[in-house]
Amino acid sequence: MIVITSNQTPQDQVNDIIAVIEKEGLQVHLSRGADHTVIGLVGGVTPKLAEHLRQMKGVENVVKITKSYKLASRDFHPEDTIIDIRGVKIGGENLVIMGGPCAVESPEQIDEIARLVKASGGQVLRGGAFKPRTGPYSFQGVGVEGLTMMAEAGRKHGLLTITEVMTPEYVDICAEHADILQVGTRNMQNFDLLRKLGTCGRPVLLKRGFSATYDELLNAAEYILAGGNRDVMLCERGIRTFETYTRNTLDLSAIPVLQNLSHLPVISDPSHGTGRRELVEPMAKASVAAGANGLIIEMHTDPDNSMTGDGVQSLFPEQFDKLLRDLEKLAPIVGRKFSNSLEAAPIA
Amino acid sequence: MIVITSNQTPQDQVNDIIAVIEKEGLQVHLSRGADHTVIGLVGGVTPKLAEHLRQMKGVENVVKITKSYKLASRDFHPEDTIIDIRGVKIGGENLVIMGGPCAVESPEQIDEIARLVKASGGQVLRGGAFKPRTGPYSFQGVGVEGLTMMAEAGRKHGLLTITEVMTPEYVDICAEHADILQVGTRNMQNFDLLRKLGTCGRPVLLKRGFSATYDELLNAAEYILAGGNRDVMLCERGIRTFETYTRNTLDLSAIPVLQNLSHLPVISDPSHGTGRRELVEPMAKASVAAGANGLIIEMHTDPDNSMTGDGVQSLFPEQFDKLLRDLEKLAPIVGRKFSNSLEAAPIA
Amino acid sequence: MIVITSNQTPQDQVNDIIAVIEKEGLQVHLSRGADHTVIGLVGGVTPKLAEHLRQMKGVENVVKITKSYKLASRDFHPEDTIIDIRGVKIGGENLVIMGGPCAVESPEQIDEIARLVKASGGQVLRGGAFKPRTGPYSFQGVGVEGLTMMAEAGRKHGLLTITEVMTPEYVDICAEHADILQVGTRNMQNFDLLRKLGTCGRPVLLKRGFSATYDELLNAAEYILAGGNRDVMLCERGIRTFETYTRNTLDLSAIPVLQNLSHLPVISDPSHGTGRRELVEPMAKASVAAGANGLIIEMHTDPDNSMTGDGVQSLFPEQFDKLLRDLEKLAPIVGRKFSNSLEAAPIA
Amino acid sequence: MIVITSNQTPQDQVNDIIAVIEKEGLQVHLSRGADHTVIGLVGGVTPKLAEHLRQMKGVENVVKITKSYKLASRDFHPEDTIIDIRGVKIGGENLVIMGGPCAVESPEQIDEIARLVKASGGQVLRGGAFKPRTGPYSFQGVGVEGLTMMAEAGRKHGLLTITEVMTPEYVDICAEHADILQVGTRNMQNFDLLRKLGTCGRPVLLKRGFSATYDELLNAAEYILAGGNRDVMLCERGIRTFETYTRNTLDLSAIPVLQNLSHLPVISDPSHGTGRRELVEPMAKASVAAGANGLIIEMHTDPDNSMTGDGVQSLFPEQFDKLLRDLEKLAPIVGRKFSNSLEAAPIA
Repeated sequence: MIVITSNQTPQDQVNDIIAVIEKEGLQVHLSRGADHTVIGLVGGVTPKLAEHLRQMKGVENVVKITKSYKLASRDFHPEDTIIDIRGVKIGGENLVIMGGPCAVESPEQIDEIARLVKASGGQVLRGGAFKPRTGPYSFQGVGVEGLTMMAEAGRKHGLLTITEVMTPEYVDICAEHADILQVGTRNMQNFDLLRKLGTCGRPVLLKRGFSATYDELLNAAEYILAGGNRDVMLCERGIRTFETYTRNTLDLSAIPVLQNLSHLPVISDPSHGTGRRELVEPMAKASVAAGANGLIIEMHTDPDNSMTGDGVQSLFPEQFDKLLRDLEKLAPIVGRKFSNSLEAAPIA
Repeated sequence: MIVITSNQTPQDQVNDIIAVIEKEGLQVHLSRGADHTVIGLVGGVTPKLAEHLRQMKGVENVVKITKSYKLASRDFHPEDTIIDIRGVKIGGENLVIMGGPCAVESPEQIDEIARLVKASGGQVLRGGAFKPRTGPYSFQGVGVEGLTMMAEAGRKHGLLTITEVMTPEYVDICAEHADILQVGTRNMQNFDLLRKLGTCGRPVLLKRGFSATYDELLNAAEYILAGGNRDVMLCERGIRTFETYTRNTLDLSAIPVLQNLSHLPVISDPSHGTGRRELVEPMAKASVAAGANGLIIEMHTDPDNSMTGDGVQSLFPEQFDKLLRDLEKLAPIVGRKFSNSLEAAPIA
Repeated sequence: MIVITSNQTPQDQVNDIIAVIEKEGLQVHLSRGADHTVIGLVGGVTPKLAEHLRQMKGVENVVKITKSYKLASRDFHPEDTIIDIRGVKIGGENLVIMGGPCAVESPEQIDEIARLVKASGGQVLRGGAFKPRTGPYSFQGVGVEGLTMMAEAGRKHGLLTITEVMTPEYVDICAEHADILQVGTRNMQNFDLLRKLGTCGRPVLLKRGFSATYDELLNAAEYILAGGNRDVMLCERGIRTFETYTRNTLDLSAIPVLQNLSHLPVISDPSHGTGRRELVEPMAKASVAAGANGLIIEMHTDPDNSMTGDGVQSLFPEQFDKLLRDLEKLAPIVGRKFSNSLEAAPIA
Repeated sequence: MIVITSNQTPQDQVNDIIAVIEKEGLQVHLSRGADHTVIGLVGGVTPKLAEHLRQMKGVENVVKITKSYKLASRDFHPEDTIIDIRGVKIGGENLVIMGGPCAVESPEQIDEIARLVKASGGQVLRGGAFKPRTGPYSFQGVGVEGLTMMAEAGRKHGLLTITEVMTPEYVDICAEHADILQVGTRNMQNFDLLRKLGTCGRPVLLKRGFSATYDELLNAAEYILAGGNRDVMLCERGIRTFETYTRNTLDLSAIPVLQNLSHLPVISDPSHGTGRRELVEPMAKASVAAGANGLIIEMHTDPDNSMTGDGVQSLFPEQFDKLLRDLEKLAPIVGRKFSNSLEAAPIA
């Protein structure tokens, strides 16, 4: 870390700063410039010390040199994390496809969609049992029953399942029924939830907050990793910008950036990332071309009558199938393996 | 609500749309233009119907005419809501001042700060017992003990108290010890928390999410109101923009806009809204000049040694006092009453 | 267009609004709802009328139904515009590759880079003679001489050339030496420049302002088109968001969105769009996968010693070549023709 | 300036970096940490060197310690700049009020509005002769004739005048007729225009680009100052954010921040900054409370029939007058002098 003082900082304030640093057992490197004195710290800086220094008199700026996350950083874990869920590999050269409806609506609906996801070559069935809704008068999901409907459909068709968990109390029940737990964009900094997921025993897909920086996403992942759960996927799902034509702006640079900064797999969500059906196909292809380790895509047999408003971004089954046929050709060109099937028996 | 179809929409699709509307018992007004057919709906439109229509074939756009929130809207509640907490009035012409540290650290710290807040003319003591932290290795607050320390300090010095509640399970314990419960910016759309606050029996200060629109903030308030709790304050605390010199961009237009759209009191938080001590004073004054019903300000007796990183935005006690002396003069010019003291005995 | 009044609007105000509309010879469709009266306008609405209505008493909102641009809209020009510059086709299924340095530095530099662009399969040589610089003390380009250096290099190696024009007075001299004129992101709404380009006789590549919406970009294109110049390319080059790790956020959804709204070719600029060399390759591939009609990429033989700060985002020649080899394989999978060579003699 | 290399940077690359720095005659301070080597530069760093270093192999980051602008910086000019235009003082404790229509429409219109601005206590008449319009089919202003109409109205009523200049060719004619030249938000980085204004002989009001950072605004001011013109005012007029209820988000923190960083006067534009008439009054007061040195406000005698779309944000004369009466009381409380009248004869 580096502490920058201004040239108007009197010597006794500089001495105070140095004293604080040395009290913590760290070494100091001092550079005096024409306008500024720069104090370099050598050794492990605690967040508390960093914050203390930032607030001291005479300090103009404190520049972090090292990252605030460790377990999520590629610096300390150069190889890609590859998560293996009963033979389905997520990370590295593997491309994983997760598909399904926004919300589980009925046993028949989820069974039929599962059949179609499997037939097209997907590995994971997605579906929400509880829905976070911005207005209190909207459809809120079918609840726990939806979890069993989805688990049953996954078992029958040989698919893993993923579902969103919105609150710490529901982590256990979701972990009982689903193979992967998903943290939604509004919960990326729900720290109680993240901590609980650190010990849930299931891989977690962590969606980027719609206004979160890369650094904040990686720090959120650090919460889960620090709890002991090393099976974390990062998910780009669109950020909020001034452009309102699309629901969000899908930030595909996030894919190579996060892969450079971290060893964790990066999944792209072109459905929520655009909020418009006609953009899902081009942005899914672009995601894979940018190096994504997987996609999570909404598909519905009757999107115009889905129970949530998200039907507008759901692919029809034939669109989903055509997209996967195209990805099958595209994947090898960018170093991704499309075929990636479930080996062992699904969740018992 | 209005449904807009394009001129390429075939008549049978228009008929389908009309059929769906009429099935719900609503009236239809049809306008055919050169390029578009516009279908007006008369009557109460459910969110589900709106979403269904948006997804139908041939629909180019659906425009909401009425707001999705009702209880929070001034349309249905033209008079200002005035919350009365043991004689301290929040809303209308009253200006309420909330002051205190980012985090409760010790009984001595909070007692001394409470004394200073009271002496300067504040009505409410703020302080966090649990801290939401973006990295897992930061100071997380002193916990439940902090609640009792703060309650004791408030009682002794004749101040109301406000504290942040981060998760539904803590609502009851916080409601037991504090007069006002605060929802932080990262929890504005934590819907389980909002629902629980709807029945907590305490006034709630709801902070705007740092990337939330006015509409989303008012819909979040609607969750609490719909649960039966009518004592909600809205709080502008800065939004995320491309400008990074300030931690956030304090959006003061939010004050008159929210007061136009809603009857709920609007509080401004210039401390988090700027993240820089030297900006707190001008932005606090600007907030009052823009019509704020109150301010929530961080003040600390030793900000350079506070246990959280937020000392950097905390005022020194003498700055806090000087600010309040200036506000005392400013308030009447913009139609606000500065003096607003606790009448009854504090919380037992 | 639709005018929405509130239910508190007195009848005489509604009558005033109707009178204004009918005075312009337009038809009115009136729908009265419980909360709002909606007035639909049938016929061509001038911007002046729209603005007048927006300001009238009792008007709550005015909703545009039709777009404010016509010539740029696909509604009135369903087929793709294909620009043919001496045999190089831009638009439709053709993929055009533009490569070269940020700034022309010397005849040797631009000659060598032109040779490399051609050898790798590019069709257009890019290079700046005048540089827009955010600080007054930075390198400002070599000026008119750079134009002749670049023209000469293009001629010799069989490449078209593109250069940025920053001010109306320079349009003629740039048009004399370059095949395509480029409007930079800071000039997207320099309306005098746009008007001048409407009659310049050269195709124009119009970069999206770094905070411009799709609608604003298409209106800026409309300026050029309205002047009589139909050869306009749109260029996505990254927008400003809260994320500062990348210089800009390359918004790849812009590609399919602009292609849906408009018939004009859409080019992607992954160099400025990311500002980081290591992101150019994945984002170039993602752009093509998203359907881009072309790419404009910075390449430099000695980026570490380039005269502008943009060397940091320039590819090395071997990286540029490897990228084009990969694109050669990728293009046909997403319906793009990679090979696209200059037929006729270059600019005389 | 500080150069940060990673710990994986081999020693020969570090040596290369040091060699480049020492070749420029600068001193080097080296600090080796566990993870990073930090190289401090002592002495004046040219932008070219900074950029060169940023691009060198092994460099992870380059941190500017000193600002890239000098003449605009308070570091080198601690006292407030006070611009004196025939007795009207702008800067320091003086509050200047500029009022008038968006566009000059006719001699009668501008004469009547000038009379009202003067009567209410304003010092400067604003009005546009040329209008930048985002669509090519909108009203573009009355042109040069408008300049003479406005000059005549200013002369008659004892007001200074300000008008926007959009292109370098018009600087001379505008400088002939107006006392202050205004650079609009879309031209903040029109560097040819800025350079021309550096020698125009008139004070300049420079509006912040709607997506420009404080640093970029100050660098744009530096262009004008570097040309020899020291009479520059900065103007906050709203930035583009995700919130679309207001046309822009008026960033009032810009006022104290710019006053801290720079000695130049800071003017606020609550009309364009909000785009809504009902927000002009509260945001004008908030601007003054935040410490603004002046306001520029749209006022129109018949806003509902103004020729531009901006009538919607224009105050009625009686609103303008009432606002100034309130500001007269507010100004002294925040250390501003409201009364500030023209002494000498207006422009001949």
